Amino acid sequence: MRQDTNRNPARKLNMTATRVLFFDVLGTVVDWRSGIAREAGSFLARNGAQQVDPGEFADAWASRYDASTEAVRTGHRPFVSLDVIKRENLDATLVQFGLAPSELPTAELEELNLAWRRLEPWPDSLKGLARLKERFIIVPLSGANTRLLLDMAKRAGLPWDTVLGSDVFGTYKPAPQAYLRAVEILGVRPAEAVLVAAHNDDLAAARRCGIGTAFVARPKEHGPAQTTDLSPLESWDFVADDLVHLAHVLP
Amino acid sequence: MRQDTNRNPARKLNMTATRVLFFDVLGTVVDWRSGIAREAGSFLARNGAQQVDPGEFADAWASRYDASTEAVRTGHRPFVSLDVIKRENLDATLVQFGLAPSELPTAELEELNLAWRRLEPWPDSLKGLARLKERFIIVPLSGANTRLLLDMAKRAGLPWDTVLGSDVFGTYKPAPQAYLRAVEILGVRPAEAVLVAAHNDDLAAARRCGIGTAFVARPKEHGPAQTTDLSPLESWDFVADDLVHLAHVLP
Repeated sequence: MRQDTNRNPARKLNMTATRVLFFDVLGTVVDWRSGIAREAGSFLARNGAQQVDPGEFADAWASRYDASTEAVRTGHRPFVSLDVIKRENLDATLVQFGLAPSELPTAELEELNLAWRRLEPWPDSLKGLARLKERFIIVPLSGANTRLLLDMAKRAGLPWDTVLGSDVFGTYKPAPQAYLRAVEILGVRPAEAVLVAAHNDDLAAARRCGIGTAFVARPKEHGPAQTTDLSPLESWDFVADDLVHLAHVLP
Repeated sequence: MRQDTNRNPARKLNMTATRVLFFDVLGTVVDWRSGIAREAGSFLARNGAQQVDPGEFADAWASRYDASTEAVRTGHRPFVSLDVIKRENLDATLVQFGLAPSELPTAELEELNLAWRRLEPWPDSLKGLARLKERFIIVPLSGANTRLLLDMAKRAGLPWDTVLGSDVFGTYKPAPQAYLRAVEILGVRPAEAVLVAAHNDDLAAARRCGIGTAFVARPKEHGPAQTTDLSPLESWDFVADDLVHLAHVLP
């Protein structure tokens, strides 16, 4: 997986001016699938649905994200926070697996929805972020809302310099406004920022906004049979094995 | 200065639900006058204006803040960041003291304007914030823009959980929108938040929004001859000598 650290020599000069590193969070910094599957499995077992595979349930719940946020991106729905979207999608996922949300304990559903705050960082994330923080302003750039990211950071010890959620940007990636508003608030030009992400489509959208790009593969994000985002699909400015490696790769 | 820790018993129940502490920054957490006077004094001496008293210069520069931000609050001027306002007011202050900005080195003026990022915390601030962070989400609620607050925090070691500047709220305190948008982004009801400030007018505006109030006197904020904000002018929910004391006062 390790590749040339600088795949686009033209970026090298710009990097000397890099001030801000933005990070995709769900999948790139934390392992959402394991955490959601663990809490969903416990919930399902408690409520007589042992037959549902927790990993499949986690995948199904997460996979509704794109369509839900697209309604916001296109203006068909006023901005709603990820907390609200996840809660709606939890109900839809339960129905998909043959369960009736109205027959399940509301308090337990609310608690399960908060599992998105209790995700664990990948093994390299805390060490990598701490090293990168010594040289850069490190900021999440996620679909998650500010409070979700804050609770996650306090629990997991993610050392963000500031936490700005999609509720601050008023839309969801990959809408250009999300990247451009983030850059504006951080007081930098796009070329002074780099997005770190495990998702090629996220990096492509950032690049279209003039933001630098760093790909970190997370080959187990979608479980043992992952087929997507295993390698960089464009010549991203930087490619690293993990966030500790990224601290070496960035000039 | 130490007073009853809870001046309004009716608040006691609410405090058990307090999740977020907002902090005024300039004056409450950091000592702006000493830092600005030091850097302005050095600038003035270098540029042949030794006759200007650095403390008076700092006071004059800072005192233009209210009128400048009022134009934004009333909608007479689209939102501009504190970086821009401070730079404009620096020129006006120089003129006030008989100096011509156009005859002074631009790079030095830009650098002097960044002095607002290099302010020192009051002696109790770092210790107090660290203790309060163990029990609350701690967030600045300032007229300063996000990047100014971020640079200040990284340099001084202020351990904010997140940094949201007035550019995120789109207006300046004491406009209600500043407090209410902060509360909304943090995902709490006003009664679940407390503003910590050394300024009675700031606390009064927060209270009108339903936010809890904690007064911390900073009797040297305006120098040795300070006459304002020496004591609480209303029955604020909490009164503390400094931020370390506040960690004891808050239930």
